[in-house]
Amino acid sequence: MAAIGRTRWIIPEGFIPGRSMVNADRPLLSHEAFCVLNAGDAEAHITVTLFFTDREPVGPYRMTVGARRTHHFRFNELEEPEKVPLDTDYASVIESNVPIVVQHTRLDSRAADIALLSTMAWPAD
Amino acid sequence: MAAIGRTRWIIPEGFIPGRSMVNADRPLLSHEAFCVLNAGDAEAHITVTLFFTDREPVGPYRMTVGARRTHHFRFNELEEPEKVPLDTDYASVIESNVPIVVQHTRLDSRAADIALLSTMAWPAD
Amino acid sequence: MAAIGRTRWIIPEGFIPGRSMVNADRPLLSHEAFCVLNAGDAEAHITVTLFFTDREPVGPYRMTVGARRTHHFRFNELEEPEKVPLDTDYASVIESNVPIVVQHTRLDSRAADIALLSTMAWPAD
Amino acid sequence: MAAIGRTRWIIPEGFIPGRSMVNADRPLLSHEAFCVLNAGDAEAHITVTLFFTDREPVGPYRMTVGARRTHHFRFNELEEPEKVPLDTDYASVIESNVPIVVQHTRLDSRAADIALLSTMAWPAD
Repeated sequence: MAAIGRTRWIIPEGFIPGRSMVNADRPLLSHEAFCVLNAGDAEAHITVTLFFTDREPVGPYRMTVGARRTHHFRFNELEEPEKVPLDTDYASVIESNVPIVVQHTRLDSRAADIALLSTMAWPAD
Repeated sequence: MAAIGRTRWIIPEGFIPGRSMVNADRPLLSHEAFCVLNAGDAEAHITVTLFFTDREPVGPYRMTVGARRTHHFRFNELEEPEKVPLDTDYASVIESNVPIVVQHTRLDSRAADIALLSTMAWPAD
Repeated sequence: MAAIGRTRWIIPEGFIPGRSMVNADRPLLSHEAFCVLNAGDAEAHITVTLFFTDREPVGPYRMTVGARRTHHFRFNELEEPEKVPLDTDYASVIESNVPIVVQHTRLDSRAADIALLSTMAWPAD
Repeated sequence: MAAIGRTRWIIPEGFIPGRSMVNADRPLLSHEAFCVLNAGDAEAHITVTLFFTDREPVGPYRMTVGARRTHHFRFNELEEPEKVPLDTDYASVIESNVPIVVQHTRLDSRAADIALLSTMAWPAD
């Protein structure tokens, strides 16, 4: 399949809840994800830059999505150049060398039950 | 009414929760749907291709939406060429021979209550 | 302010839950809404057409949004030409004589708590 | 990084729930936010105009987002020219002198648990 999408996507609303329901396993742990589809036949080399309220941007975070693959990355699990702080407002710019499509999702399990939000990221190129 | 929409739509964030609340009937069963509107006067012949994290794409899944009809398809209920695995990240590309509009929705009832997310799919043509 | 938006908007995912939590007042009653902003200086004359899975479209429903006004219409409260059936999949096409912007929201209170979804409608003109 | 986005964004669906769960701290208080990313190298001067169902628009509300910063503004916390009424339908137009990206989020904790919705705002320029 030919490559689909754009090479730069924006998510203004970043926030990883710092708590989760009791005994949450990984699926029900509070988390925030950017889901990437790379429908094309070339590997996607992706960089993420994080923006904050009161300090300079952090990045690039680097990851790869193989040809004809999807990968749902959790911001919680990013490690380099630094972990994403919890309970903190941030925003992200996601760039790729080939066209991709990006969707944003949060699962919030701070209360006894879970809440979900999702939106397509905004394509900027 | 003239046909409305585009012929290729993308949903990067696929995930069907593998559990549901106790005694869930079909409406409250955890599920994920792509909702198609075919506003035009010709039948829409639709193919869906699913992408995964660690294997080649699966498809096409084939379905039809009549002229001037909507159909809300549950990924859970797709059967051919194979069922969609639960608790597994995937993404989808939805293609049609005529313009359609596609919206993505998930109902998650793994906890005692339900959570919902929805977003318009991303039009790629 | 000059008129903002488009004159035709699409919401493929319509579904009004047929039940609500015990003692729900109007705000917490299960409902589905299309929220219209008419930022311009001319009254917006709006028509809504509903599409179903297994019968011909129903409409037009007619409503007006004054100049420089917003109105959040509940599908549940539409009356003419007929009420919108509960627990039934539908889709909607919303047309206006002047540019408007439309957002879709559902509140589902079938369980003990509430769930929300929202997305911008899809502009088709 | 070069400026990213558009200079006018629309959110038709505004509604701040007037109640919250018992003992809610600020993060779990019912609220509605517009999240701004200003990825560029110039400060963003932003004005917000609110639209209502039955009276003239209110504004401008004024705020600033520094270069290379994100700010998640709560409508609940706007003060000038007047506070945003609770339990009241409204819509917003968000304008900036430089390109920005805007996402809309609501957290509703009127019930014992929380519900979330989010969507990208609609870019109007």
